[in-house]
Amino acid sequence: MATVKRYKKEDQQTYCLGATVSMEYLNVRPQSVTKVYLHSAFCAEETKEKILKICQSHSIPCEVNDKVFQILSQKENCFVIAMVKKYSCELDKDASHVVLVNPSNSGNAGTIIRSAAGFSVSNIAIIRPAVDFFDPKVIRASMGALSRVNFKYYDSWEEYAESDGAGQRFFYPFMLDGSTLLHETKIQKPFSLIMGNEATGLPDSFSKIGQPVRIEHSGAIDSLNLPIATSIGLYEATKGSF
Amino acid sequence: MATVKRYKKEDQQTYCLGATVSMEYLNVRPQSVTKVYLHSAFCAEETKEKILKICQSHSIPCEVNDKVFQILSQKENCFVIAMVKKYSCELDKDASHVVLVNPSNSGNAGTIIRSAAGFSVSNIAIIRPAVDFFDPKVIRASMGALSRVNFKYYDSWEEYAESDGAGQRFFYPFMLDGSTLLHETKIQKPFSLIMGNEATGLPDSFSKIGQPVRIEHSGAIDSLNLPIATSIGLYEATKGSF
Repeated sequence: MATVKRYKKEDQQTYCLGATVSMEYLNVRPQSVTKVYLHSAFCAEETKEKILKICQSHSIPCEVNDKVFQILSQKENCFVIAMVKKYSCELDKDASHVVLVNPSNSGNAGTIIRSAAGFSVSNIAIIRPAVDFFDPKVIRASMGALSRVNFKYYDSWEEYAESDGAGQRFFYPFMLDGSTLLHETKIQKPFSLIMGNEATGLPDSFSKIGQPVRIEHSGAIDSLNLPIATSIGLYEATKGSF
Repeated sequence: MATVKRYKKEDQQTYCLGATVSMEYLNVRPQSVTKVYLHSAFCAEETKEKILKICQSHSIPCEVNDKVFQILSQKENCFVIAMVKKYSCELDKDASHVVLVNPSNSGNAGTIIRSAAGFSVSNIAIIRPAVDFFDPKVIRASMGALSRVNFKYYDSWEEYAESDGAGQRFFYPFMLDGSTLLHETKIQKPFSLIMGNEATGLPDSFSKIGQPVRIEHSGAIDSLNLPIATSIGLYEATKGSF
């Protein structure tokens, strides 16, 4: 009998909603997938075959169970759910990082993860309080790219700066009053692009950290949306390196 | 008595959900605002005063009516609704454009509008079939920036190219197999940045139009999210011009 329940933060496991998202976890982190549920109406035969093959080779149980979808998914177009055992990551201390200070929105977090994976900056530091990266909404918005990044929570900026953010590293806080323009700033590696909360941005104290930068835009808007600003930063910092 | 109903595409009017979004329309296009509803629990006195002042000077009726919020808003944090009479815009033929071919998601459309306004590219061509820009979800995701852009629908790419897209103009279709990299491409003005549908991108035929460009990213993701790609294009095309 299925004993699945809607995700809660304190749960030991989370889940991927949808075939694309589930396939990412099955391909990238099959060791974390504990079970796969298929909906009886799932008829993408090629994808189904791939899923069954991965499940078989990693001994992941796979069953058809429509009730699970009623419980876990509110979307009508979800036909695959992969259950994922939570895991913990360490950041690569020598690599470039994205640092999210108090991110609050799950869709935004997912979009940022997707961009970070896309620009090969696959280490994300998260300063609490912050959205739960294992929330199924985050995983879904990331299109499963959460499987491809290392992410780690810290209780404060100082905790990050004294541990994984320590050593030879260049800090770039993104601030509306940053003293240099992003496109005129030479982003050196390894970098930490530091982004604030959706509503409040970074605290003023970050203006004394590293090289604060701003993305030039008109006065028609207060600020760019957080995943947009983060992705423009990632684009500028990595262009020419693929 | 209130005769408001949830938005339908064929309606003659739409609405702004929330104080920030409503304020944008009141500030930028007061002539299109037909009525403002306040919730009795709205207690941001400074904003309320501003709203009342604009309503008074433009003879816009304003009333406290909690029922309207029950009907139009599902969010608990919405205390102002501005009703907006639909209007039509013409694109500036000499200005740079964003061209959205078959955009399908209202949140994405809103985020793109906000970025376009932010980068002062305030003319948006939309090729049908496409999401309805007057949908309250689009207006809300744009943070009200829809009020600041001209947007116009076309039945086909050809219709756009032969009318508002005609004349001395540089076309940049964004394609995963674009022949030049965005950051190595000199974007000339006036430009049209041409973006495809969220799921399918641009049809192959666009590879013969103007200078197809691609945003370099790793193979870890299939593509960047549409508002992200559009905003990176806008950033690259306008940097240094504010």
